[in-house]
Amino acid sequence: MPELRKDPVLGRWVIISSERASRPDDFKDVCVKDRLKAPAFCPFCEGNEAKTPPEILAYRNPGSQPNGAGWRLRVVPNKYPALQVEGNLDKRGVGVYDRMNGIGAHEVVIESPKHVESVTELDVETIRDCFVACRDRLLDLRRDSRMACAMIFKNVGAAAGASVQHSHTQIIVTPVVPRTVQQEMEGSKKFFDYRGRCIFCDIIEQERADGVRIVADHGNFVAFHPYASRFPFETWVVPRRHSSHFEDIHGAEAAELAHVLKSSLAKIERALGHPPYNYMIHSTPLSMPKLEYYHWHIEIIPRLTKVAGFEWGTGFYINPVPPESAAEFVRGIES
Amino acid sequence: MPELRKDPVLGRWVIISSERASRPDDFKDVCVKDRLKAPAFCPFCEGNEAKTPPEILAYRNPGSQPNGAGWRLRVVPNKYPALQVEGNLDKRGVGVYDRMNGIGAHEVVIESPKHVESVTELDVETIRDCFVACRDRLLDLRRDSRMACAMIFKNVGAAAGASVQHSHTQIIVTPVVPRTVQQEMEGSKKFFDYRGRCIFCDIIEQERADGVRIVADHGNFVAFHPYASRFPFETWVVPRRHSSHFEDIHGAEAAELAHVLKSSLAKIERALGHPPYNYMIHSTPLSMPKLEYYHWHIEIIPRLTKVAGFEWGTGFYINPVPPESAAEFVRGIES
Repeated sequence: MPELRKDPVLGRWVIISSERASRPDDFKDVCVKDRLKAPAFCPFCEGNEAKTPPEILAYRNPGSQPNGAGWRLRVVPNKYPALQVEGNLDKRGVGVYDRMNGIGAHEVVIESPKHVESVTELDVETIRDCFVACRDRLLDLRRDSRMACAMIFKNVGAAAGASVQHSHTQIIVTPVVPRTVQQEMEGSKKFFDYRGRCIFCDIIEQERADGVRIVADHGNFVAFHPYASRFPFETWVVPRRHSSHFEDIHGAEAAELAHVLKSSLAKIERALGHPPYNYMIHSTPLSMPKLEYYHWHIEIIPRLTKVAGFEWGTGFYINPVPPESAAEFVRGIES
Repeated sequence: MPELRKDPVLGRWVIISSERASRPDDFKDVCVKDRLKAPAFCPFCEGNEAKTPPEILAYRNPGSQPNGAGWRLRVVPNKYPALQVEGNLDKRGVGVYDRMNGIGAHEVVIESPKHVESVTELDVETIRDCFVACRDRLLDLRRDSRMACAMIFKNVGAAAGASVQHSHTQIIVTPVVPRTVQQEMEGSKKFFDYRGRCIFCDIIEQERADGVRIVADHGNFVAFHPYASRFPFETWVVPRRHSSHFEDIHGAEAAELAHVLKSSLAKIERALGHPPYNYMIHSTPLSMPKLEYYHWHIEIIPRLTKVAGFEWGTGFYINPVPPESAAEFVRGIES
């Protein structure tokens, strides 16, 4: 009997389809071929700094020059930005429609001078530095009142939308709060208004008590496959300390997050043969104050299944692997 | 300067990214390789009726037997159903979570005994029959009060989630109204409460007056690229006569719809080299009465771009081709 499960924040339903059941390792084949080929020339590698726009932030070796070699991490504007910093919004109606100029920010965090494709090939300190750099960029960007909401995300592999192989994280800041973010805020506020508690804090407590969907639990961070997983091996990494904004993360927490993220991803990669994946940091909009009802977290989506017409039309997902089976399989992998 | 546009029904924003502009025909390369390979054996071809579950409905030649050869169209239960008809819902809480049994329906409309991959290879009468069969299945299914909402959809090509090459349409009926459908209802009701008009009727009027996004206009149906297109060549087919439920379509309208759908898709295929695509019939839930504020329609999505982390996290889309350019390109193709 298939089972319907509801995401408690968004009210999004998924079908956990035992009738179409796959074994967790059925997905191994789809993975490797979707990785990107090594390019003849990489603009993100050390020595090629002139091929990116000038750096906004960099962690550099003593004595090195901006936009030259000798760095550990660089943040640069995206060369083909989805949104641009200069200009005004010019909000206007066009008959029944609404439009505005594409103002915002689009930055790239080049995580390492080494040409690697996945963060799992980097050491924990390097991943920690990436989170610290993202935090510092948000603290800077939020001083601009046009910047409403930041999305920090990562695309690895062609099927996940990556176009550059060299491991990097992107930050896009939009001048309006996107619909999904707004709905997450509304869903978690509704729960808070009724129960007086943060729904994510409740979820963490239940997941740690149940244990069946947990894949990592270390310091301030717990990683688990969500009850209403849309996709096989979908994994959420959530801080145990209640915090609405990612940019309030402490340095020691960033190191713990790096550890949990790396070990969760490494196990998925070992289990499935390096699937393409995305992760996104879900956080409260820059323009909003600290909230008791929302709780930032990371959602990792390995790209193993295709999104088809049913999902596009309904926002209802069909997941052939129960998260409990996927989590058990992942826990059995050595990290 | 990139432009932000808002879908007036869902409040979903898209970035029309002129800075990342593609020419409409830049997508030709990605298409052909994503089509499915011809299978050694096809369960949907004439003569193989025993390989599907017994038919629910069929258009047959006089004298032919059910589940034998001699048919023009068959509707059968999906052999690997996402939801099943037998049983009760058994709604329950699991701590903070909600679940119920996967009750519903999952049917397949085999549109033709001929092994073709896209509906554009079928004649208009055959496509009309498919819409009539879908209508008749919904009229039957809605007599069961557990059936809340039907999604009629089509997946063509591997990248669009198809697993069977032989042209077919799927119907999934869910026991709850899915989130996206609910949000469409709420968005169009909000407009109606404020303006006293159906937002889709307003959109049709504006699109026909502007003309720049129209790709077909015939009888009761108009096809256009929506103002806030999420994807290059996204195309909506909308009936001019206000109607909230697809299953209220008349036979003559089904023929006009078949004509407009076929010509819109055929132009996209000729322009882009047979891309994978999905289409979905957006309609009012079976469980709801006729509505003044919602208007059923078809959304066609050619699968040309990859959905990446930004879109997953925000529900905000980046579209590199303005719909006006795509529509102009499509209008220039002979049908």
